[in-house]
Amino acid sequence: MNISVAEIAELVGGVVCGDGATTVTGVNGLGEAGPGDLSFLGAARYLPLMADTRASAVLVPHDFADSGVPLIQVENPYLAMVAVLNHFQADLMRHPKGIHPTAVVDKNAVLGENVALGPHTVIAEGTEIGDNTIVYPGVYIGHSCQIGPDTLIYPNATIRERVTIGARCVIHGGVVLGTDGFGFAQGAKNHEKIPHVGRVVIGDDVEIGACSAIDRATFGATVVGNGTKIDNHVQIGHNVSIGTDSIICGCAGIAGSTNIGNNVTIAAGAGFAGHLEVGDGAIIAAYSGVTKSVKPGQVLFGYPAVEHTLGKRMHAALRHLPEALRRMRKLEERIVQLEGQSNGPATEDDS
Amino acid sequence: MNISVAEIAELVGGVVCGDGATTVTGVNGLGEAGPGDLSFLGAARYLPLMADTRASAVLVPHDFADSGVPLIQVENPYLAMVAVLNHFQADLMRHPKGIHPTAVVDKNAVLGENVALGPHTVIAEGTEIGDNTIVYPGVYIGHSCQIGPDTLIYPNATIRERVTIGARCVIHGGVVLGTDGFGFAQGAKNHEKIPHVGRVVIGDDVEIGACSAIDRATFGATVVGNGTKIDNHVQIGHNVSIGTDSIICGCAGIAGSTNIGNNVTIAAGAGFAGHLEVGDGAIIAAYSGVTKSVKPGQVLFGYPAVEHTLGKRMHAALRHLPEALRRMRKLEERIVQLEGQSNGPATEDDS
Amino acid sequence: MNISVAEIAELVGGVVCGDGATTVTGVNGLGEAGPGDLSFLGAARYLPLMADTRASAVLVPHDFADSGVPLIQVENPYLAMVAVLNHFQADLMRHPKGIHPTAVVDKNAVLGENVALGPHTVIAEGTEIGDNTIVYPGVYIGHSCQIGPDTLIYPNATIRERVTIGARCVIHGGVVLGTDGFGFAQGAKNHEKIPHVGRVVIGDDVEIGACSAIDRATFGATVVGNGTKIDNHVQIGHNVSIGTDSIICGCAGIAGSTNIGNNVTIAAGAGFAGHLEVGDGAIIAAYSGVTKSVKPGQVLFGYPAVEHTLGKRMHAALRHLPEALRRMRKLEERIVQLEGQSNGPATEDDS
Repeated sequence: MNISVAEIAELVGGVVCGDGATTVTGVNGLGEAGPGDLSFLGAARYLPLMADTRASAVLVPHDFADSGVPLIQVENPYLAMVAVLNHFQADLMRHPKGIHPTAVVDKNAVLGENVALGPHTVIAEGTEIGDNTIVYPGVYIGHSCQIGPDTLIYPNATIRERVTIGARCVIHGGVVLGTDGFGFAQGAKNHEKIPHVGRVVIGDDVEIGACSAIDRATFGATVVGNGTKIDNHVQIGHNVSIGTDSIICGCAGIAGSTNIGNNVTIAAGAGFAGHLEVGDGAIIAAYSGVTKSVKPGQVLFGYPAVEHTLGKRMHAALRHLPEALRRMRKLEERIVQLEGQSNGPATEDDS
Repeated sequence: MNISVAEIAELVGGVVCGDGATTVTGVNGLGEAGPGDLSFLGAARYLPLMADTRASAVLVPHDFADSGVPLIQVENPYLAMVAVLNHFQADLMRHPKGIHPTAVVDKNAVLGENVALGPHTVIAEGTEIGDNTIVYPGVYIGHSCQIGPDTLIYPNATIRERVTIGARCVIHGGVVLGTDGFGFAQGAKNHEKIPHVGRVVIGDDVEIGACSAIDRATFGATVVGNGTKIDNHVQIGHNVSIGTDSIICGCAGIAGSTNIGNNVTIAAGAGFAGHLEVGDGAIIAAYSGVTKSVKPGQVLFGYPAVEHTLGKRMHAALRHLPEALRRMRKLEERIVQLEGQSNGPATEDDS
Repeated sequence: MNISVAEIAELVGGVVCGDGATTVTGVNGLGEAGPGDLSFLGAARYLPLMADTRASAVLVPHDFADSGVPLIQVENPYLAMVAVLNHFQADLMRHPKGIHPTAVVDKNAVLGENVALGPHTVIAEGTEIGDNTIVYPGVYIGHSCQIGPDTLIYPNATIRERVTIGARCVIHGGVVLGTDGFGFAQGAKNHEKIPHVGRVVIGDDVEIGACSAIDRATFGATVVGNGTKIDNHVQIGHNVSIGTDSIICGCAGIAGSTNIGNNVTIAAGAGFAGHLEVGDGAIIAAYSGVTKSVKPGQVLFGYPAVEHTLGKRMHAALRHLPEALRRMRKLEERIVQLEGQSNGPATEDDS
C-alpha cells in the first residue's frame, strides 16, 4: 500500500513538518527502516538514531522538528504508530469471507450477520456465533457454545462444547479451549476419571495465544475476564478464575482453582500451584514458581517465589556462597587456633 | 437434565435423609452451589460450609445426618459425586455419530463396529480402529495405526503413522503423537537428520492432554503404559518409556530414552534429562529438574533435583543467606580483633 | 522391507565380514535387537553388548572383525546407520501424493511440480509452493506465503499469511507460524493491541517440532536461519532472530527481539528475556533463564543464568548451606566466648 505523509498526519491527527507529498509503503524501526518506510521516535533514548535513519518519514513528538526527513508531529508517536499499523494491517489481511461450502454447520447452529466460516470448519448443534465474527479454516466449535460478535478465531483452534467467548476476542491457531480438567479419583480403578461437566467462560476483548489450552471446570466455570491477554503455550487449569486486564506471558501455567485478580502481570514461564489467591496488580517475574497466595500489588520472584527484592538478594548472595563457605572453613581454623591460645573452647561442640 | 434425590440415591447406592422427591439440575461445590444444585461433603474440613450451603441436596458420609437440606448418605461422597458427574456428563456430550461424508477413509483402513468419524477426519491406509471409538472433526490418523475400542479422540489431534493406542483412551485436542524424535548426527551436513523409524505405543486407559506431544522412537518404540494419565502441554521425547498408572502433570518434559516406572507422580513443569531411570512410586515436585536417576519411592524437589526434605531446607536456608553473609563479615572482623589481642594469627591466610 | 547384508554394505560403502546373504528386516540398538535386526557399534563403550547381541548383522568400525554375526565394516557406524535408517524410512512413509479433491487451493496460488496437498488442506491467495513439497492433511497456509521446494509440512500445522519457508524444511504437526506477536500499548484501552504487520522468514533445512509457535514481527521479520533445528513446544517471540545451524530443544522460549547467533545450543526448557544478544556457539543448559546478553562460546546455567562452572559451584554450595548456617551459629557462640575471655568485644555489634 501507498500512503502520503499528509494522509498519515490526517489519520493520526498530526502536524506535517516537511514534504507532505512524500509517500511511504511500509513501517519499520528507526534503525531498520529503509527508503519508503515510515518510522517513529518512541522515546528520547532513540534520538541518536534519528541522525542516520533511512526512513522516508518519522512520527515524532510535538517538540521535535529538526530532521532531514519529513516529520509528523503528534502527542504520542508510539500510539500514533499503532494507529498507522492498524491502517496497514487492514490492507495486509485477507480474512475469510462468507460461509465456505466445505464448512459443516449444524442445522441448529445460529450464525449472526456477516459471519465468515473458512473451509473445513465445523460448527456443532446449538452454537451461536455473533455478527462479523471470523472463523478461519480447520476450526472446530462444539455444541452449545456462545461466540460473541467481532471475534477472530485463527486456524485449527479447537473450541469444545459449551464454551462462551465474548466480543472482539482473538483466538490464535492451535488453541484448545474447554478440554477436560486433569482430575482423577482413587476409586475402583487406580485413577478414575472425574468427569468435567463445567464450562469455560471467556470475556470480551480477550486474546489467547497460539497453542494455549484452557481446561473446563469440574463444575461451574473456568473464567477469563474482560481485556485479559494470554500469550502462546499458556496452560490454564480447571476452575481457574482470571480477572480483567491481566497479562499472562508465554509458557506460563496456572494450576486448578487458583484465582488471579485484575491487572495482574504474569511473566513468561511462571507457574502457580492450585487453590491460590493472587491479588489485583500483582506482578510475577519470569520463571517464578508461586506456591502461596499473593497479596495485591506484590512483586514476586524465584521458586518458591518470594518478594522480588528478597529474591534478587538471595540470588546475588548465592553467587558469593562458594567463596563464603571457604571463608567459613578458614574462620573455623582460626577460631580453633584462638581457642588453643585461650586454653581450648569453654563449651564442647555437641551438635 | 432433571434428577430426583431418590434417583441419585439409587444411582450411587445411598440412603436418603429428607425429601427424596427434591430434584436437582446441576452439580457444584458446597460454597458455590445454588438452588437446584447437588453438592457433596468430600472431607471433614468442608463441614463449616454445610450450614450455609444453598445446594438443594448434598452427598454426605453415613455418619452425617444433621442438615436443613435433603441428604444422600454414602460411603464415599467424593466417589459418589464422580458417579453422578458421569451421569450428568452423558447427558451433556454430543459425540459425533457415524461416518461423516467429509471423512476421508482409505479403502484399506479397517473400522470396527459403531466407529464415529467426524467431519474432515482422515484415516490413512492400513489403519484399524476398534469398536465404538469416536474420532472428532479434523483428526488425522496416519497409515498402519492401531486404535483400540472405546477410545475418544478430540478435534484436530494428529496421530502420525504406525502409532498404537489402546482401549478406552482419551486423546485431547491438538495432541501430536508419533512426531519425529529430535535427533541429529554430525555428518556431511552440520546437523544431519536421524530418521526415526520407530513407533509410539500407548496402552489402555491412557489420557493425553491438549497440545501434548509424544515423539516416535529412533527404532523400537516410545511407550506409555496402561492407566497412565498425561496432562496438557507435556513433551515426551523419543524412546521414553513410561510405566502403568503414572501421573504426568501439565507442561512437564521428559527427554529421550528416560524410563519412568509405575505409579510415578510428576508434578507440573518438571523436567527430566535423557537416559535416566525413574523408579516406581517416585514423586517429583513441580518445576523440578531431574538430572540423575531416581530410586523407587524417592521424593525429589528443585533443580538440580534433590531429596525433597533437603531441597526444602536448602531453599529455606537460602532465604537467610544474605543476612548470613553479613554476619560472617562481622565474625571475620571480630576474629581479626581477637587475633590482634593474642599477637596475631598463628597461621597466615595463604588461600 | 527385506535387505541383505551385501546390499547394506553397498548402500553404506562398507566391507562385509561373514555371510553377505543374511537378510535383515529392521533396525535396533545392540541391546534391544532381535533376529532380523541390523544394529550398529556406535562407540567403544558399547563393545560389551556385542557378545550377547541377538542382532542378525552389525555395522562396525573397520578395526572390528571378531563376532559370531555378519558384520559390515565402515568408517563411521553411526553415520552408516543413519544412511540405513533413511533407506528404511523411505519404505515406511506413505506421504500424500497429488492434490486431494478436498484441498481448497485459491486460484491465485502457485503450485510447483509434484506438490502434494493432502485432504482438507487450504492454500490461500498468492501463496507459492515449491516443487516436491508435501503438505499433510489439515494444514492451513495463509495468503502470500512462499514455501520452498522439498519441504514437508505435517498435519494440522498452521502457517499464517506472508510467511516464508525455505527448501528441505520439516514442519511438524500442530506448529503455528506467523501468529501475532504479544504486544500491547497503554492507550485509550488498558491494553491496546499493537498490530503485527511483520513477517516470519524461515531458512533452508530448518526443522520445527510439534506444537511450536513462532510469532510474526511487529514490523520487519522474525527470522530462523538455515540449518537451525527447533524441537517441540518451543516458543519464539516477535522480532527474534536466530542464526544458522543452532539447536533449540523442547519447551525452550525466546522473548521478543532477542538475537540468537549461529551454532548456539539451547537445551530443553531454557528461556531468554527479550532484547538480548546471544553470541555464536553459546551453550545454555537445560531450564536456565537467561537475563543478560551472552558472549560467543559462553556456557551458561541456572536462573538467573551464570557461567556454567560458577552455576554448578553455586548449586553444590547450596547443598551445604543448611549445615553451614548451623556451623556459623556455633562459630558466633565460640567467638562470644573468646571475646569474654579477652575482656569482651573491642567493637560493638551495631549492625
